[in-house]
Amino acid sequence: MTLTLETARTIIAETRAKGRSLELKPLSVVVLDAGGNILAFEREDGASPGRFQIAHGKAYGAVMLGMPGSAQMARAESQAYFMGAANGAFGGQLIPVPGGVLVQDGQGVTIGAVGVTGDTSDHDAAAAEAGIAAAGLTALA
Amino acid sequence: MTLTLETARTIIAETRAKGRSLELKPLSVVVLDAGGNILAFEREDGASPGRFQIAHGKAYGAVMLGMPGSAQMARAESQAYFMGAANGAFGGQLIPVPGGVLVQDGQGVTIGAVGVTGDTSDHDAAAAEAGIAAAGLTALA
Amino acid sequence: MTLTLETARTIIAETRAKGRSLELKPLSVVVLDAGGNILAFEREDGASPGRFQIAHGKAYGAVMLGMPGSAQMARAESQAYFMGAANGAFGGQLIPVPGGVLVQDGQGVTIGAVGVTGDTSDHDAAAAEAGIAAAGLTALA
Amino acid sequence: MTLTLETARTIIAETRAKGRSLELKPLSVVVLDAGGNILAFEREDGASPGRFQIAHGKAYGAVMLGMPGSAQMARAESQAYFMGAANGAFGGQLIPVPGGVLVQDGQGVTIGAVGVTGDTSDHDAAAAEAGIAAAGLTALA
Repeated sequence: MTLTLETARTIIAETRAKGRSLELKPLSVVVLDAGGNILAFEREDGASPGRFQIAHGKAYGAVMLGMPGSAQMARAESQAYFMGAANGAFGGQLIPVPGGVLVQDGQGVTIGAVGVTGDTSDHDAAAAEAGIAAAGLTALA
Repeated sequence: MTLTLETARTIIAETRAKGRSLELKPLSVVVLDAGGNILAFEREDGASPGRFQIAHGKAYGAVMLGMPGSAQMARAESQAYFMGAANGAFGGQLIPVPGGVLVQDGQGVTIGAVGVTGDTSDHDAAAAEAGIAAAGLTALA
Repeated sequence: MTLTLETARTIIAETRAKGRSLELKPLSVVVLDAGGNILAFEREDGASPGRFQIAHGKAYGAVMLGMPGSAQMARAESQAYFMGAANGAFGGQLIPVPGGVLVQDGQGVTIGAVGVTGDTSDHDAAAAEAGIAAAGLTALA
Repeated sequence: MTLTLETARTIIAETRAKGRSLELKPLSVVVLDAGGNILAFEREDGASPGRFQIAHGKAYGAVMLGMPGSAQMARAESQAYFMGAANGAFGGQLIPVPGGVLVQDGQGVTIGAVGVTGDTSDHDAAAAEAGIAAAGLTALA
């Protein structure tokens, strides 16, 4: 199963809707495919200009390592030099905190990742999970 | 005047619609704000995975240098080493061909740029121009 | 509202004046626009030669993340690996300590950032705040 | 003899004044010291946001290689691979065209460089030369 642009757009729309219903700060949301490449992105008005880099880093680390942001954060806290070294290997593009969420199909196969930034990391992750669920897919946050 | 996410989404939707009406290959479309930062992006199904980087490079060079892709291409053809050097100064992020199109308001002030890739460079630029015009803004291609 | 060069020059002049009145060490002061791009910079005689990079890193992180230096420092102290990772995502260009100060208009919209370096981080920030206030704008340090 | 900030400010003011008197497009002007480090910079309103990188690249190449932009351009035209290779050695920071002008004292000692961008390369260089002369120094363009 491949993540289509239409599904990516649904995930972004529903992630943003969740942000509004939770009254979160302006969100930025990226969707990557199973190869870690960018499918779609939106930055809400009022977000700071560098939010693409943060959203991308959360999603990119999740899909490239096969670990959602929460697991990356746990590893960073228990073994900081490992995540630092992994980051070097990926050109400094990983942001190992919640808000990087894996997207899986019904068979548990990872088909992409979502990265959300703008509010607290936990709120970012909750919005991503809601967006992925609304698209009929499974979130691993 | 600031480019909002809603306007960026309109530009992308109308650029894609133009691509379909011209029967172009799958397009990837990015919208940057006046500071060269990413507002929104979509990659159509069937496009190759690296299209974000190409779309971004077209739009980024346009807004950072204040020159649409056609002008950058002319400069690259008359003075290749200049565009090569300029690219170095921007971390290799410039793609100096048509498809990088400036977005201007009614007073001729640049408020962002659109980058399109997927078909020939000239078709990419034509789709971007149509998308910007449909959003009620002025395109400088 | 856009930060003009004339306002940027006023901010730099008044930041430097504050530095002299507080008898601070030689200061270097950069002003970035809302997109994180450089508007103006001055390095006072006697400052070490690499002060542009430090001043720029303070201001750049503030505007790109929407967080002044003090907030970045707090995050770096509570979650060092996050600021380290964020820095990677921005090409190593962030300096997360006081002296990176957001410039806001009367509506609380960020229109740029000032970066000051040369004395202690807190003195650097105080000089930036004075410079921004003297230009009739709001500082978020 | 060392280039002071006060002299750098004079050079920038006089370069900009020359630009206005010649009715050039908005200019961006950087002054580097004899070590290639940034002393002062100003970007005029209406210039595209990436002009710092271009101005810097012109001045940086001039002072680091001891060759003004015109000489670098001649070398790029006769031996493109050399300037390309030199650029690699300097991290892609050189812009080998006119507008990078050496600043020399009365004994012919280089004490810094000026980089100007915004109009044609030749006009950029002419403005820099006027600015340097107005500060009582010798320009090598």
